Amino acid sequence: MKIEVLKNVMEVNDTLADDIRKSTKKSKTLVLNMMSSPGSGKTMILEKILPKLLLNGVKTGIVEGDISTTNDAERIIGNEIHVVQINTEKFGGDCHLGSEVIKPALEQLHYDKMNLVIIENVGNLVCPAEFDTGADKNMVVISVTEGEDKPQKYPLMFRECSLAIINKIDLLPHLEFDIEKLETNIRQINPGMEIIRLSARTNENIEKLLSWVMNNLKK
Amino acid sequence: MKIEVLKNVMEVNDTLADDIRKSTKKSKTLVLNMMSSPGSGKTMILEKILPKLLLNGVKTGIVEGDISTTNDAERIIGNEIHVVQINTEKFGGDCHLGSEVIKPALEQLHYDKMNLVIIENVGNLVCPAEFDTGADKNMVVISVTEGEDKPQKYPLMFRECSLAIINKIDLLPHLEFDIEKLETNIRQINPGMEIIRLSARTNENIEKLLSWVMNNLKK
Repeated sequence: MKIEVLKNVMEVNDTLADDIRKSTKKSKTLVLNMMSSPGSGKTMILEKILPKLLLNGVKTGIVEGDISTTNDAERIIGNEIHVVQINTEKFGGDCHLGSEVIKPALEQLHYDKMNLVIIENVGNLVCPAEFDTGADKNMVVISVTEGEDKPQKYPLMFRECSLAIINKIDLLPHLEFDIEKLETNIRQINPGMEIIRLSARTNENIEKLLSWVMNNLKK
Repeated sequence: MKIEVLKNVMEVNDTLADDIRKSTKKSKTLVLNMMSSPGSGKTMILEKILPKLLLNGVKTGIVEGDISTTNDAERIIGNEIHVVQINTEKFGGDCHLGSEVIKPALEQLHYDKMNLVIIENVGNLVCPAEFDTGADKNMVVISVTEGEDKPQKYPLMFRECSLAIINKIDLLPHLEFDIEKLETNIRQINPGMEIIRLSARTNENIEKLLSWVMNNLKK
């Protein structure tokens, strides 16, 4: 009985996610789903890249997912950026965003008038990878303070993503961290993964992420 | 129907957790459940404190929870430490440890001959807090690279724990991080929380954690 019910929940989620992709294909809106552990720096990456996207004329909307608080949305809002905050606490403290909460959020953002929507998922390296949000591409952020073995320990996350952003590289001189080993580990789980090393704090390589996003916009 | 089933799952979990506490009360085994985001340093904290526990004559067992790999168990094993690894990938990639997997792990460890069992839960700041493992006390590890607002964003985790370990304080000089603000935020969510600041890497304040554990052993 339990399995039956869970299967139904996943089916409903996947069907709705496909519907979202059909709609955003029509409106030529690129939807990116950004996932990571808590504190990997997703919000700061957005803070750094959003002004550059604006300068490039990319109309961008943000969906902020958190169990509680509007802290991240408050950091992002302004500069002609439209933000919708989803607090999953109202839905029982959900540990991920499903397509059933993404769909109304996209509508509230008027996604059909946007070139780009970035979903900042709930900080969690496990569950968000299990739920299709309807995004075109998934990205995972991992910071160099987190250890090199995370791809092997959280394989589904690294399988589901097409871009890995390695953040906080400014801290490398102060850590015993082997970034080459992390990249080898990522590619062992997902050989086709694109990887960008950057520091949101110092802006190093933020331009590389910008290029990646620009190249993926729908024409 | 869905809610009914989930309720039953939680009831079964809680009943089994209470059974575990009854058994470990009888055997005078302290069971601690350590939770955190991925990469906060749980395993390194164990690596540093276990030899000290041994020197103090504390018979200790470890339950390692990971979705995949035995990396953490391999780091811990040896030095007369008994380790049982639970890989939740076999149970559908579960994002937490429930009492139904903890009970057989405790039995395999011969918990009744131990003074202390430490559960290293799956790295996840969300779901593990929702599932009673049968432990006597819950601990959360948060590293200073993760941002000061985590207690507000993951309130259940901070409500369910009685000790917060703030790790990686050796990195403070290289970060813009306000540790006082983190402590204020923790106490706003959980006024009674005990807090230990430490660095597993440099061993700073590991003795404080040792004292905390020794003081909580069952007599």
